[in-house]
Amino acid sequence: MGGMDAHEHLKQAAMAARHASHELARSSRATRDAALRAMADALRAGMHDILAANARDVAAFRGSNAFLDRLTLTEARVEAMAVGLEDVAALPDPLDRVLAEWTRPNGLRFQRIATPIGVIGMIYESRPNVGADAAGLCLKSGNAVILRGGSDSVHSAAAINAALQRGLTVAGLPTGCVQVAPNADRAYVAAVLAGAGLLDLIIPRGGKSLVERVQQEARVPVLAHAEGLNHSFVHAAADPAMARKIVANAKMRRTGICGATETLLIDRPIATALLPVLIEDLRTLGCDFRADAAARAIVPALKPATEADFDTEWLDAILSVAVVDGVQGALDHIARHGSEHTDAIITQDEAAARAFLRGVDSAVALWNASTQFCDGGEFGFGAEIGIATGRIHARGPVGLEQLTTYRTLIFGSGQVRP
Amino acid sequence: MGGMDAHEHLKQAAMAARHASHELARSSRATRDAALRAMADALRAGMHDILAANARDVAAFRGSNAFLDRLTLTEARVEAMAVGLEDVAALPDPLDRVLAEWTRPNGLRFQRIATPIGVIGMIYESRPNVGADAAGLCLKSGNAVILRGGSDSVHSAAAINAALQRGLTVAGLPTGCVQVAPNADRAYVAAVLAGAGLLDLIIPRGGKSLVERVQQEARVPVLAHAEGLNHSFVHAAADPAMARKIVANAKMRRTGICGATETLLIDRPIATALLPVLIEDLRTLGCDFRADAAARAIVPALKPATEADFDTEWLDAILSVAVVDGVQGALDHIARHGSEHTDAIITQDEAAARAFLRGVDSAVALWNASTQFCDGGEFGFGAEIGIATGRIHARGPVGLEQLTTYRTLIFGSGQVRP
Repeated sequence: MGGMDAHEHLKQAAMAARHASHELARSSRATRDAALRAMADALRAGMHDILAANARDVAAFRGSNAFLDRLTLTEARVEAMAVGLEDVAALPDPLDRVLAEWTRPNGLRFQRIATPIGVIGMIYESRPNVGADAAGLCLKSGNAVILRGGSDSVHSAAAINAALQRGLTVAGLPTGCVQVAPNADRAYVAAVLAGAGLLDLIIPRGGKSLVERVQQEARVPVLAHAEGLNHSFVHAAADPAMARKIVANAKMRRTGICGATETLLIDRPIATALLPVLIEDLRTLGCDFRADAAARAIVPALKPATEADFDTEWLDAILSVAVVDGVQGALDHIARHGSEHTDAIITQDEAAARAFLRGVDSAVALWNASTQFCDGGEFGFGAEIGIATGRIHARGPVGLEQLTTYRTLIFGSGQVRP
Repeated sequence: MGGMDAHEHLKQAAMAARHASHELARSSRATRDAALRAMADALRAGMHDILAANARDVAAFRGSNAFLDRLTLTEARVEAMAVGLEDVAALPDPLDRVLAEWTRPNGLRFQRIATPIGVIGMIYESRPNVGADAAGLCLKSGNAVILRGGSDSVHSAAAINAALQRGLTVAGLPTGCVQVAPNADRAYVAAVLAGAGLLDLIIPRGGKSLVERVQQEARVPVLAHAEGLNHSFVHAAADPAMARKIVANAKMRRTGICGATETLLIDRPIATALLPVLIEDLRTLGCDFRADAAARAIVPALKPATEADFDTEWLDAILSVAVVDGVQGALDHIARHGSEHTDAIITQDEAAARAFLRGVDSAVALWNASTQFCDGGEFGFGAEIGIATGRIHARGPVGLEQLTTYRTLIFGSGQVRP
């Protein structure tokens, strides 16, 4: 970018994005879907360049093997990105849905319709595919996007972006629809966060420190994922076989995802009979435990939990365990320690389930199902750009619908206001 | 408050509000409505104290007569506040609405339901009634609110709040549902703006400098009104009599409200015939003009407009006037100068109207009606807490529905994620 500083570059990118967003807002579904398919084709056609650019990033990388794996692209991974774009093209159009419609006594007819948000800034870390996935969801929902990937993947991101822009051009849409930060300049993140008036929304996707920085510094609305401190509560009237199946899945299917259960709450009347079995199931799967005194009285081998353990999102094969008294005891524990993300009750007692679902204030509350269902794909969204833990605009999985906003059309016949 | 500083007070108020918000989220509609009616009764019973407190504020006031009028309470104005609360009690319940419902192939049933946002911080200026109105809407929608009124009205606000809290107590709800800043300490505004983790949303209501400060400094999501630079576009196929009626109303019914038209756009083919008549109507009503060269060629007496005039929200009896070429010319002008608030087209040509409604990206877009209909009451919301000009969560009038968010309930029968 020569001598252009990050803020100036962002400003120019944002102006191009704003122009593109107006064009997108007026575009037809057919045009947007054609662009998505052309972007997929261009990724395949650009395979060689993308892998070569990625090889440069990989050669320069000095981090852990786990991160290296996330950074590394293969033909199969690029193909998966292309298929992802085609899948998004096939999803229903999230725009122009009539969300509400009503008529007033003066004859004015109101229509609330779904419309794009505008210009979205996306800040993410190492995985290069996140950029292509986000670009697809933003384009489908009529939003222009400016992508700022991790500094480790800057060459990969540029090569992917070049391919995506070739696809846009084939479909007759401006390249301003999808843009990428020009280099690894860290000042670009600061410029995005300061982008009031330039960007309409920032979506960070990455570790806790990235998300916290964005939430602390952003001068633009943020849709972010903070913490998933999720509970599975096994109620006294639970079916024991179902409880065993759900708890094992909720904790151990994948321990590192945000929908994983971090704390097992067990109702006192069944704790003596059921807790040892649940613990044994989980131990067999490789789980370790931090348990309160009542749980340790039943299974003495469990490690003791500190109060802080119940505030810890393990994202690992560790489970906090507490014995509670009924639905109210579970709700009290969750209100004190939870993060309003995803919480489940397992019970055959409908009244208990209703009381739990009503009393818990989580973005997602489940009855007799695994907390790991907190996922856009499992919701039927087709694809998701992340999970939102804030309380306004969107809660839980963020799919195409959540990337839209609304406006109101009013149809009159000469009405004036008295 | 003794030596307690603003931030410490806000923290304690926010903790009480959080506790109250959990109780509100579980409360029944009947309880919330009973509280609203008890609050109305308490305002009437507290009439003497409220007027005495207001008299202290009025005696200390050193500002303009217009502001003095806003600050001054009378028996009739307190009665209007009470009736306002009763009216809100009679509105439909915005909570527990089922916003969407679907079932997945694995048998999981999903239900998206409306739920309170949580704890709202409201910052407003002189009118003491704004606090009571906001408290009513927040309580009805299950939100706890912390009110920080203008420093000029601090005694009035405290007396009103004492009455509202007596009403809450009568209905068995915690006083933490509605709280007020303890004094005129300016640091309290800063504490509210810094309230990340304590507040879920800030709603500022006041002049441009207040709103800009909130948008610049807030560490919490904001629902705010920035600017209403609204256009009425008289298309070539407009009915002249309808155009005269709508334009006069859109500009002159009330010039100081955010839905007032600030710029008249007139289509070139009818400008020569219709512009002089429209100008004469408005001039008779006391309007002044800033017109572009093409308009002045038709009505030479008009004052010339600078480019900056078209970027000016007059909020006064002044109208910017420009001649444009068709719908596209109007859309281009609005894209360059508008604020995406409220824009109208007047035409008998449905295709032109559809093109305008599709092409304009305003929160509210009207066909053959006055822009002054951008108002929660006129939308049928019963009451509004303000108008939002941002692009996420809510656009346009903010009523009870816009003071809710959602969560997702998932009903299973033992499903686990593969």
